[in-house]
Amino acid sequence: MRSLLLASLFPLSLPVFAQQQDNDSIALRRLSTEVLTHSKAYANLRELTKTIGGRLAGSPQMIKAEKWGEKVLREAGADRVYTQACQVPHWVRGAKEEASMISARGNKRIPLNVLALGNSLGSSPAGITAPVIEVSSFEDLEAKKEQVKGKIVFYNYHFRPEFIRTFESYGDAVKYRGQGASRAAKYGAAAVIVRSMTHGANNFPHTGSLRYEEGLPKIPAVAIGLEDADLLSKSLKNETGLKLYLRTNCKMLPEVEGHNVIGEIKGTEFPDQIITVGGHLDSWDVNEGAHDDGTGCVQAVEVLRAFKALGIKPKRTIRVVMFANEENGARGGLKYAEIAKAKAEQHVFALESDAGGFTPRGFGFSMPKEKQDKIISWTPLFRPYDVYDFTTQGGGVDVGKLAEAIGTPIGELLPDSQRYFDLHHAANDTFETVNKRELELGAFSMAGLIYLIDKYGL
Amino acid sequence: MRSLLLASLFPLSLPVFAQQQDNDSIALRRLSTEVLTHSKAYANLRELTKTIGGRLAGSPQMIKAEKWGEKVLREAGADRVYTQACQVPHWVRGAKEEASMISARGNKRIPLNVLALGNSLGSSPAGITAPVIEVSSFEDLEAKKEQVKGKIVFYNYHFRPEFIRTFESYGDAVKYRGQGASRAAKYGAAAVIVRSMTHGANNFPHTGSLRYEEGLPKIPAVAIGLEDADLLSKSLKNETGLKLYLRTNCKMLPEVEGHNVIGEIKGTEFPDQIITVGGHLDSWDVNEGAHDDGTGCVQAVEVLRAFKALGIKPKRTIRVVMFANEENGARGGLKYAEIAKAKAEQHVFALESDAGGFTPRGFGFSMPKEKQDKIISWTPLFRPYDVYDFTTQGGGVDVGKLAEAIGTPIGELLPDSQRYFDLHHAANDTFETVNKRELELGAFSMAGLIYLIDKYGL
Repeated sequence: MRSLLLASLFPLSLPVFAQQQDNDSIALRRLSTEVLTHSKAYANLRELTKTIGGRLAGSPQMIKAEKWGEKVLREAGADRVYTQACQVPHWVRGAKEEASMISARGNKRIPLNVLALGNSLGSSPAGITAPVIEVSSFEDLEAKKEQVKGKIVFYNYHFRPEFIRTFESYGDAVKYRGQGASRAAKYGAAAVIVRSMTHGANNFPHTGSLRYEEGLPKIPAVAIGLEDADLLSKSLKNETGLKLYLRTNCKMLPEVEGHNVIGEIKGTEFPDQIITVGGHLDSWDVNEGAHDDGTGCVQAVEVLRAFKALGIKPKRTIRVVMFANEENGARGGLKYAEIAKAKAEQHVFALESDAGGFTPRGFGFSMPKEKQDKIISWTPLFRPYDVYDFTTQGGGVDVGKLAEAIGTPIGELLPDSQRYFDLHHAANDTFETVNKRELELGAFSMAGLIYLIDKYGL
Repeated sequence: MRSLLLASLFPLSLPVFAQQQDNDSIALRRLSTEVLTHSKAYANLRELTKTIGGRLAGSPQMIKAEKWGEKVLREAGADRVYTQACQVPHWVRGAKEEASMISARGNKRIPLNVLALGNSLGSSPAGITAPVIEVSSFEDLEAKKEQVKGKIVFYNYHFRPEFIRTFESYGDAVKYRGQGASRAAKYGAAAVIVRSMTHGANNFPHTGSLRYEEGLPKIPAVAIGLEDADLLSKSLKNETGLKLYLRTNCKMLPEVEGHNVIGEIKGTEFPDQIITVGGHLDSWDVNEGAHDDGTGCVQAVEVLRAFKALGIKPKRTIRVVMFANEENGARGGLKYAEIAKAKAEQHVFALESDAGGFTPRGFGFSMPKEKQDKIISWTPLFRPYDVYDFTTQGGGVDVGKLAEAIGTPIGELLPDSQRYFDLHHAANDTFETVNKRELELGAFSMAGLIYLIDKYGL
């Protein structure tokens, strides 16, 4: 409010640059007040998560989510709403996974809480019963490779608590989920169990994609919750003969058609110059896909809604995109980039929100230094909103495809990361864990950045 | 981790100042890793909230909390643990409040969710049945003062969403809770109902203290949840003859003895110079007092524990204080300041954490400019932890008493504020709403600041 007051008290006594800064300050304040007062983001998110829920590529919910996406974009006032078709993988989990420790002592069976990894294939219907070998890392796997054959490999690599930003812990640990199955299959493992990528003080297993390496057996793979991972590790120390029963029922069906859902405001001066802002519409099947990535979708729609509500007429075309199939294929992002390249579209900038709907701390960017420096020069405009960090490198899976294809400068919202991996890819990623204001402040930050890039170019 | 590497690669090639910066950087990294890896804060908070729970001044839980405080300070390794006695008010809620709308149409009764305000007095046992007058502000009350007599005044002032930091919304709205009863009593009101100070998308009423003005009738006062406030407002528009039934059962009993609970590490060079770090041990009776202010207490204890665990021997005396009775009297803070003054203690700095256990964004300070500038010069040391804001004015109720009494420079942790007023003084301020890492990052930030102030003075 201070900027508003200053500007109205001394409108003519300021030099042009300061005047310009003040105009921008006023524009950002109007955007923040609009979003914090009249946002539809939270109500939209409730509808997506509670009436549709989990919406993995190929599922019936995917179709419902696409219809919902078109509807909310129209309601937000988009000049044009359309879709882009793309083929998406159709992985299904099947019946709930089963896992239990079988103790030779008294023939006890202790159930474990596991979730099959995305894109993994099921065990035989009878399941697998085999001894377990625990490894703490790939180095440890290599050291024990002679003992792996016929066993279930248990990757018990701990999510590191000492990193401040939790995405560093994720980047450090996620290779065990992505590559663990094939690395173990190489030495004859029967299946793998991967400690979940989380700090969470609970027992939710966290799923996510794996990638089978060509030419190696495609063995079953599950994530296990932290409490059960610790129980398993302890039990293995106490009883050398411990076996594990594991059954997963997932399979990969033939590909089906999915869609990117797109809404635009047409630019008044440079309609062929496109600024993209989006999130991904798909989510894992085991939760409501609230923070991953319902929040990114409704924030992107909110950017468009707020512009329309305030009568902001961008010079360039603002394109809101809800990408298909980010979680286990990124086909939506690939298709969007492919079409952009084929049509020789001019893409000024593309922004993604896919790190949760938490309080925004800044943006990460991947672009030439002089462009990022231009954005960094706007940092003072965001200080009143406690959004500080404009220097981090970043991008995101979907807009990353555009950068790869045609070199578009890209960015991603950086929300506070502390709670994200408590619920990432787990059953507890639900609407209730989203705070309305945190969600809205992220949407405002995105709107403010898009506003400035539209106004000044990049 | 980068600072550590840099320092170990080039320890001798740096000028003295940079060398010093690097030593400090290493010290802060050791503290953060210790806290994020071995903190007891979360486990201590679970014990306080789950085995003791709400602990208002004068309650049996107050005594239990004091014993708990002494125990955890001893476990953390304090050189000395002791208490300071102070007289505290003893307000009791009594049986659950009742409120309902009475519609003349069909004689319907619709219950409303209310909580008596702290320090308020109960209605007669029969309760109050009276018409309601809604006011939007004190200005509106003044305009309608002729119509107030014998009625229940309903302050329906909305918590403003457009402020970015929610404490601004609180500062803007809290006068209706604090002064509303007496302002209405002046014009003959029978009771007041105050819209809760929250953005929360739910119906929890949020209590908190009022202050009766001397010489005016002490009328009953309750907070009402947002959904019921909206329902009441709407119903008043629909039916002019609507009455309200209100019964509260609270009373003020004679004062009792409470205690500040204190643990110290004795300074090696300047033992008479004291640095205080604390939170308040009391909480409202209706919740577990998790964010308000269990988190502040366990963070302050964690500062001491981390120093001890790392073998840091401060030059000055570090004193952890869990203050008594912040919520409805601040007698603990007053007593602490009174004793400091009476003993002519040297207080270098006093830090408080009483704004929730959320991700830290910085610190607020009240001190002479040159001292704050010294602290601001340390900002780069906190950047790796995404703790940026050192320029805000701030303090806190308890350490504020020390500043008033003897001019001590004071500060407060500034956590992200978006979620705080969802649960502040309401039944949902529970352990489950605290994130372990957010809590720990706050504790580390406090430890880092105390470390630097101890090392360099202020």
